[in-house]
Amino acid sequence: MKKLSIRTSQRCELVDVTGPVARELAADNFSGLCLVYVPHTTAGVVINENADPSVPLDISGFLEELVPHRRSWRHLEGNADSHVKASLVGNSVLIAVEGGKPQLGTWQGIFFCEFDGPRSRQIWLRTVSAD
Amino acid sequence: MKKLSIRTSQRCELVDVTGPVARELAADNFSGLCLVYVPHTTAGVVINENADPSVPLDISGFLEELVPHRRSWRHLEGNADSHVKASLVGNSVLIAVEGGKPQLGTWQGIFFCEFDGPRSRQIWLRTVSAD
Amino acid sequence: MKKLSIRTSQRCELVDVTGPVARELAADNFSGLCLVYVPHTTAGVVINENADPSVPLDISGFLEELVPHRRSWRHLEGNADSHVKASLVGNSVLIAVEGGKPQLGTWQGIFFCEFDGPRSRQIWLRTVSAD
Repeated sequence: MKKLSIRTSQRCELVDVTGPVARELAADNFSGLCLVYVPHTTAGVVINENADPSVPLDISGFLEELVPHRRSWRHLEGNADSHVKASLVGNSVLIAVEGGKPQLGTWQGIFFCEFDGPRSRQIWLRTVSAD
Repeated sequence: MKKLSIRTSQRCELVDVTGPVARELAADNFSGLCLVYVPHTTAGVVINENADPSVPLDISGFLEELVPHRRSWRHLEGNADSHVKASLVGNSVLIAVEGGKPQLGTWQGIFFCEFDGPRSRQIWLRTVSAD
Repeated sequence: MKKLSIRTSQRCELVDVTGPVARELAADNFSGLCLVYVPHTTAGVVINENADPSVPLDISGFLEELVPHRRSWRHLEGNADSHVKASLVGNSVLIAVEGGKPQLGTWQGIFFCEFDGPRSRQIWLRTVSAD
């Protein structure tokens, strides 16, 4: 398993990690599937548009409104909303890889979703080869 | 990678693609996993009930209410809500396949989730064999 | 495909199934990926914190508020909300496995998400080996 480290800078933000993920995969001529896995419980990962930077801002902004930071939560560490946001977005994406290249749609990028930052975070990559 | 083409007819709708996906997988006696991947940023894919057609209508109807088309979005192309909806639903599902047959629960079907149609769209299928 | 059976006790609850899943995987020295798949349409699965039991309660409680049981749904079986909740959370997670051990983050557990219980339910496990 390969492990990438990233540093986030906001409480709630989407960080484009397409480049770092692609660089890890470029090392060999691998074809198959790659699991992009976030080992945290207050962060997630999503695939969406990375051309216009307003798109990830709209996604994180909507989630901030939908799941309020302050309300009557049971979990008392001040980040119950972060756990809920992570559950809605999901903690992994799966992508196809051909000859070391991630097979993404034209406008797609991979975003690490920080919901309780700023923090040092990890992304795990696990590949399986196709026939 | 196999690529399916579909044509959607509404701005926001769930299209049952279980049949087309199953037909692609039936070609060989493959067993393993199949990634059903949507390469778009304003569409997704979900597994849910395809017996009563009111179920996919309730899912798309709820999402339309939850993420309004018109409000103050940063992304100015008129489809910011579509990107958000796609992020909530996710852009891929993963299914097991045994002897060329998708292993779905009794009531489960695979739905392409259109959030910015009508459009011509693609679904990518990538398989890896099990031992 | 391995199939686990569980019994849920509430209409809407998150049940920690990390232990049962890990026990299934411990049998052999397998390394690769494991699909944890829910074959139902009113239930899902999510990875989040299983240290403080208030976290899963906040997640299920938020979903109950977000997607009301009673409102004007088209699907008339009294569980339209359950289908929507399942679509938001997703019906599978994918995890890496090394030497028979699920590779989860420090605070992560796997939760079966019941949205229309109490019921007898299944979880399917399908693995593919890595090189």
